[in-house]
Amino acid sequence: MKYSSKILEDAVEAISSLPSIGKKSALRLVLHLAGNTTLKNQRIIAALQNLEDELKVCRNCHNYSDRPVCDICSDPTRNKNLICVISSVKDLMAIEATQQFSGLYHILGGVISPLEGIGPENLHIDSLLQKVAEAEVEELIMALSPTIEGDTTIYYISKLLSQKDIKITTIARGVSFGGELEYADEMTLGRSIHSRLDYNKEISL
Amino acid sequence: MKYSSKILEDAVEAISSLPSIGKKSALRLVLHLAGNTTLKNQRIIAALQNLEDELKVCRNCHNYSDRPVCDICSDPTRNKNLICVISSVKDLMAIEATQQFSGLYHILGGVISPLEGIGPENLHIDSLLQKVAEAEVEELIMALSPTIEGDTTIYYISKLLSQKDIKITTIARGVSFGGELEYADEMTLGRSIHSRLDYNKEISL
Repeated sequence: MKYSSKILEDAVEAISSLPSIGKKSALRLVLHLAGNTTLKNQRIIAALQNLEDELKVCRNCHNYSDRPVCDICSDPTRNKNLICVISSVKDLMAIEATQQFSGLYHILGGVISPLEGIGPENLHIDSLLQKVAEAEVEELIMALSPTIEGDTTIYYISKLLSQKDIKITTIARGVSFGGELEYADEMTLGRSIHSRLDYNKEISL
Repeated sequence: MKYSSKILEDAVEAISSLPSIGKKSALRLVLHLAGNTTLKNQRIIAALQNLEDELKVCRNCHNYSDRPVCDICSDPTRNKNLICVISSVKDLMAIEATQQFSGLYHILGGVISPLEGIGPENLHIDSLLQKVAEAEVEELIMALSPTIEGDTTIYYISKLLSQKDIKITTIARGVSFGGELEYADEMTLGRSIHSRLDYNKEISL
């Protein structure tokens, strides 16, 4: 496609760098924006700039937050002895939507994946160990996607904590094997948190 | 969906105001942007800001342009006596992609549509009449979508120009290339029989 304008072309290039947006969709969006009111466009630009400048990562659980400590971590009604270990913010949102969990979270920022070059040192595992050592954590619910990478990560963390007096559970395998956590329906996900399994019993099966 | 951050929520709201992007897609994009490098995000923001601040509309044909007059209008090799009248910039791009047209364009900015409250006064019809009066225009090719609104617009413009010595043509309407005759609608098939072409003239092209 030949564009009559370098400005249009640059905008199409920039927008099509986003996931699942191809050149055609990007062009449609850019033409929409070009015909949009300044007010609406400034709102989008300001929201993106704000995202870039102001969005913080909670120093406790690594969730996105407007403040140094996120709303969930600073909520006094939540159970601080129960920590749900997850891969990403998307998974946190998915679990929060089930309204089945009242503890805190710990976002690893991924799972161990040698193929993608992600080792334990690339994940927030140190801060998890520190949290277990310092706070009165009774149970870690490992809510990682039931894939080889997820299982490897659970195994790795459980080994590191094997000397600690802490219960490690995994969410029930209501989620189909090989499935992605973020696409599970709320009912399945809610149930799988409710009927979580003792990890040490689990691997002895 | 409950967001842990007002900044995230605002960004999702802003992005989901774009056409064919729902809340879930917007969230996926926003989380991608939140995890993106500052450099990539600044490129997107700068492209959008540039689109808002710098993009011009060609004063001659109403195409988007980086300069007051667009590349097509200022190209000396194009035939200035032949003007293709279209509804939008998208249509211009579609026709340019065919590489079959060497004249200039005139973008109306829509078609007459009483149902959507678009009257002739909302379209760039005055500037078209002015162009016909001032320049040496020999032919207007009306390349509007073959709908009631498109046909109404062609009829309206042709009436305004009935006193002028100017040829008005419409793009051929018929069964699309590679299309199955039996699946063509009656209107299209009827018209394509009515405006049948001389086979010997056709193949000599």
